[in-house]
Amino acid sequence: MESFGPSSLDKVQAVRRRIRAGHFDGPTAGQAPGFVQGNLVILPAEAAFDFLRFCQANPRPCPLLAVSEPGDPRVPALGEDIDLRHDLPRYRVFREGKLVEQRKDIADLWRDDLVGFVIGCSFSFEEALIAEGVPVRHVLEGRNVAMYRTNRPTTPAGRFSGPLVVSMRSFTPENAIRAVQITSRYPAVHGAPVHLGFPEQIGIKDLGRPDYGDPPNVPSGEIPVFWACGVTPQAALEKAGLPFAITHEPGHMLITDIPNARLAAF
Amino acid sequence: MESFGPSSLDKVQAVRRRIRAGHFDGPTAGQAPGFVQGNLVILPAEAAFDFLRFCQANPRPCPLLAVSEPGDPRVPALGEDIDLRHDLPRYRVFREGKLVEQRKDIADLWRDDLVGFVIGCSFSFEEALIAEGVPVRHVLEGRNVAMYRTNRPTTPAGRFSGPLVVSMRSFTPENAIRAVQITSRYPAVHGAPVHLGFPEQIGIKDLGRPDYGDPPNVPSGEIPVFWACGVTPQAALEKAGLPFAITHEPGHMLITDIPNARLAAF
Repeated sequence: MESFGPSSLDKVQAVRRRIRAGHFDGPTAGQAPGFVQGNLVILPAEAAFDFLRFCQANPRPCPLLAVSEPGDPRVPALGEDIDLRHDLPRYRVFREGKLVEQRKDIADLWRDDLVGFVIGCSFSFEEALIAEGVPVRHVLEGRNVAMYRTNRPTTPAGRFSGPLVVSMRSFTPENAIRAVQITSRYPAVHGAPVHLGFPEQIGIKDLGRPDYGDPPNVPSGEIPVFWACGVTPQAALEKAGLPFAITHEPGHMLITDIPNARLAAF
Repeated sequence: MESFGPSSLDKVQAVRRRIRAGHFDGPTAGQAPGFVQGNLVILPAEAAFDFLRFCQANPRPCPLLAVSEPGDPRVPALGEDIDLRHDLPRYRVFREGKLVEQRKDIADLWRDDLVGFVIGCSFSFEEALIAEGVPVRHVLEGRNVAMYRTNRPTTPAGRFSGPLVVSMRSFTPENAIRAVQITSRYPAVHGAPVHLGFPEQIGIKDLGRPDYGDPPNVPSGEIPVFWACGVTPQAALEKAGLPFAITHEPGHMLITDIPNARLAAF
């Protein structure tokens, strides 16, 4: 299942059913090649409007793919049978802004006032890069992408604010140019890079010590390229200190019925 | 006439008529804002097929906009009244691969076997960069762009071969990303960069000593970005040592009736 070759809607839905039934709780990288996976944020309705405004004001880190009806765990825009209470392999539960629990199902925590936000994820553009022959080192090495808090603030909205979090991938100069071109086609999954070349300009002192994910290898002669990252909303959630929130466990995403190709802007 | 604001077809054609009449022989930068300008190569028909194959094999440095009929100095595809014998402010004449003469008109050198090649020029994408708020330093400073012979060979075709020549513009990292995006839209005028970040990787030892054009300022924190350059065919012409050839004088281009916007690929 590590291949990035094409999958089929049948197979993708079967994976989601296995997750729903509790038979798979691992990372979803490589589990649904060709299909969009999403970051998840679940909030009480009273905070949902602020969060929606935060996403709207910060589309690079928070590209919204869908928002559920309050109290309804379904997201039919992304898959007829999706149920946010069961369909992710692992969840994180936050109380008062602090991570308090990691679990495989949230059915017993669901409430009539909860709203789900599904946010685009870099898996889609990494697949596009690999499909076009641009190697993505951390994927080849079976590691997590390196992520960093930057000195760039997000645009605040209501109680939500905080630093832009970025993910880093390094490339040869020629592949860095291709990576800008390819990811520019995918604004719904973070789009073009936000920076390249000088980590210190965005407040990153040591590439070898990421704030999230695994320390990266950056060979001499490669350029570090930085994309806005879907961990940004988690940082904003923690900073806001909300009484209650649920997210996916990083790397354990919502698998959707949407082909990656449908997200391409041109 | 230094503005990059829009011009009109009437004004552009008036500039071309002034050049044709011998009333203007300066550089054409800024003389036809919004309209495509072209590099010119004129060769005897016996060398034209090889050169056409060279352009076809090297589209990044040699993006062909039009080729004239043998013996016909007109290029109606680029402007109804264009006459290659008079319509450029300055020409270079090569004999046996050596520059032997610089002149304002080539009517008395025209022959029934000459073929004109008009090749896209970076003025078009520099206008697009500036129009989108990405400053192009050498334009702001009123200097020529810096150009370098690289260690990358062109693809040979017949008697034509030689190094890829690149032009360099430096940008902040954010503007370098924008520059990749914007110039990618213009494959007919060199398109996306061929390199960024590490001049030594492409055989450039000292950015301060370009092979053509003016030494550039590259402020600390800016990234040098390199595009394939229309001087590449001149280097190939010289190397081929053709008995006879004519080109434009660098910076003294053919002004066409084609709006830059028409070249945008998306």
